[in-house]
Amino acid sequence: MPLYFDDVAPGMSFETGTYTMEESRMKAFAAEFDPQYFHLDDEAAKDSVFGGLAASGWHTAAATMRLLVESLDLAGGMVGSGCEIAWTKPVRAGDVLRVRSEVVEVVPSKSKPDRGAVVLRSETRNQDGDVVQVFTSRTVLRRRPA
Amino acid sequence: MPLYFDDVAPGMSFETGTYTMEESRMKAFAAEFDPQYFHLDDEAAKDSVFGGLAASGWHTAAATMRLLVESLDLAGGMVGSGCEIAWTKPVRAGDVLRVRSEVVEVVPSKSKPDRGAVVLRSETRNQDGDVVQVFTSRTVLRRRPA
Repeated sequence: MPLYFDDVAPGMSFETGTYTMEESRMKAFAAEFDPQYFHLDDEAAKDSVFGGLAASGWHTAAATMRLLVESLDLAGGMVGSGCEIAWTKPVRAGDVLRVRSEVVEVVPSKSKPDRGAVVLRSETRNQDGDVVQVFTSRTVLRRRPA
Repeated sequence: MPLYFDDVAPGMSFETGTYTMEESRMKAFAAEFDPQYFHLDDEAAKDSVFGGLAASGWHTAAATMRLLVESLDLAGGMVGSGCEIAWTKPVRAGDVLRVRSEVVEVVPSKSKPDRGAVVLRSETRNQDGDVVQVFTSRTVLRRRPA
């Protein structure tokens, strides 16, 4: 049963499954999209701002999306018009990520009565409970058909 | 020659090379990180909000990062503490993306005299010149060693 705009309210929260940041996938992602030494080279990364090999923030963001899509069934799909991301701690090889999302705000559309916008704040944590990313998104959701 | 904090000023701009959104890569990325029908199924996508198959916004964001990393040599690397993204238009299979970045603001660090923050506004455009993504990032840059 998909969630419609009418089903969500501020304060509601959702938990996802987990995503394991495999070292080989982490390096392959970085090689393709974010080829910087601290994402690719264990030794050289020790002298970087991360103090060791770290996942690309875009890999963490993409993994977060996967976890959200797997666990949240939104009517019409999860389509973001925009977002804010803060990367708060490095993600390391072997980290097991999970996401907790909370509805921050719901805004009915003034011009389109069949939909509304939902602001979700999604914290991605590692296996120690440390927040590695905070992702705030604005998603359009359909209203339940009359 | 890497760019140091001292080398950048508001109004400076940078152009990247291009990234072609290949259909097979687009679908494989979506299958891994954003498995929603409008990113995977040409026929079904016609009835979606995108009106046809569209790339995952995370693929566009990752491609944008690759273009920036390839063309901008920042001292210490391009490490974002946070960003805002707006996805303004769907990216289609075969689109050729390029990025133009402008320095919006430079903020010397008060507590750490060896660095400062640079706010970059990066517009990703397709081959028709349409803006498909606006990415505003806050990046820490080293000051030139004395």
